[in-house]
Amino acid sequence: MQRYFIYLAYDGTNYHGWQIQPNGISVQECLMKALSTFLRHDIEVIGAGRTDAGVHASLMVAHFDYEEWLDIDSVTDKLNRLLPPDISVYRVCRVKPDAHARFDAVARTYKYYVTTAKYPFNRQYRCRVYNSLDYERMNEAALLLFEYSDFTSFSKLHTDVKTNICHITHAEWTQEEDNTWVFTIRADRFLRNMVRAIVGTLLEVGRGKLSLEGFRRIIEQKDRCQAGSSAPGHALFLVNVEYPEDIFFSI
Amino acid sequence: MQRYFIYLAYDGTNYHGWQIQPNGISVQECLMKALSTFLRHDIEVIGAGRTDAGVHASLMVAHFDYEEWLDIDSVTDKLNRLLPPDISVYRVCRVKPDAHARFDAVARTYKYYVTTAKYPFNRQYRCRVYNSLDYERMNEAALLLFEYSDFTSFSKLHTDVKTNICHITHAEWTQEEDNTWVFTIRADRFLRNMVRAIVGTLLEVGRGKLSLEGFRRIIEQKDRCQAGSSAPGHALFLVNVEYPEDIFFSI
Repeated sequence: MQRYFIYLAYDGTNYHGWQIQPNGISVQECLMKALSTFLRHDIEVIGAGRTDAGVHASLMVAHFDYEEWLDIDSVTDKLNRLLPPDISVYRVCRVKPDAHARFDAVARTYKYYVTTAKYPFNRQYRCRVYNSLDYERMNEAALLLFEYSDFTSFSKLHTDVKTNICHITHAEWTQEEDNTWVFTIRADRFLRNMVRAIVGTLLEVGRGKLSLEGFRRIIEQKDRCQAGSSAPGHALFLVNVEYPEDIFFSI
Repeated sequence: MQRYFIYLAYDGTNYHGWQIQPNGISVQECLMKALSTFLRHDIEVIGAGRTDAGVHASLMVAHFDYEEWLDIDSVTDKLNRLLPPDISVYRVCRVKPDAHARFDAVARTYKYYVTTAKYPFNRQYRCRVYNSLDYERMNEAALLLFEYSDFTSFSKLHTDVKTNICHITHAEWTQEEDNTWVFTIRADRFLRNMVRAIVGTLLEVGRGKLSLEGFRRIIEQKDRCQAGSSAPGHALFLVNVEYPEDIFFSI
């Protein structure tokens, strides 16, 4: 049996997230269907993680198994012909048989876009805010995230994960264009809804409605009800998933 | 009576073009409604030109008259609150009473985006082509446009314009990103459907289906039926309209 990684991108606007589910179309389901059609065999696909409904990925990774060696270029091409226009495969590569898209990922990076401008284009990828925000203060709050590793406060309740421990290695707001700012956050893992809850709470800091001490208290209380509301999913992108070199075959 | 210029942008996806018409919603109509609501007075708006259904503008100019002096910043802000999210006003400025958004414009610039990549984002602003194109040859053909001024071949039939003479001052394909190319064309005026007909015909050149001599013959024949089909409107942007300095008040 051979194992393959798929690197793909998708516009999440029309999907109920990555994860297969009974009541809506998911990216995982589309990918499994395309692969199964092409390979004439039921293929299961395991993603590096799940993205919520409406969330995009400019880079997602998933793995699947197939008994034969595949012509990589031809698979990429065929998949792109079978997949809808809002899902695109960058490349497919063979990896070591025990490589796992989810368990072997050592870091994930997300970006969240906020704009104060009324701009007609790319509205579906930006969260519009109506007052200017104090980004300096938001970055001071973001720095506090490095002091903690239990992010229960920013996790969806009642999930089945065994631990709420995450190691955040990057968290910063930077200016993208005139009126557009982007929050980049990188960690070894993320809890469900975590990025959107952190962004929503940082926006409260930026609006002056929450102090730095208040932000710190929220983290320490480990209570989701204390944090700000989740920022909308349509402005969130999964942009990178990192793996150790040794799961790939050297070229 | 005071005359004002409005600089605006719009995503044309959901509009039947700029021009007011009985069977669909237009940008001009939205703008007139917003202005009339705000100023409590029926306001007519004259645009620098018309864009076809689905065509976008990152810069369009229009003029209107109002009897009183207006607070420019407040007008811009109010209009943006009244207009839908896909139409945005950059600025409003007072101009000389006989300044005319259409007749005084000395140049218009359009951009057309073509991509060979299957890319999930911004699909609504790109024309996807499925084979690689010979952009060098397309630029050689574009150069031929400078030798002519009668573009009947690229005009929609049965329009009511008095002349099909246009002076093209720029026409070039440049690479925007990895797999995306943009055609920029600037002229004193454009005939209806002209940019899309030129792009559609240049794409034929790029596919090797039309020679340079064939392209020249099409221009010389002055017959719309000889030219290639119109490229789709969703990848076309009006990006600039230029005016002589003397229609503005000096600051």
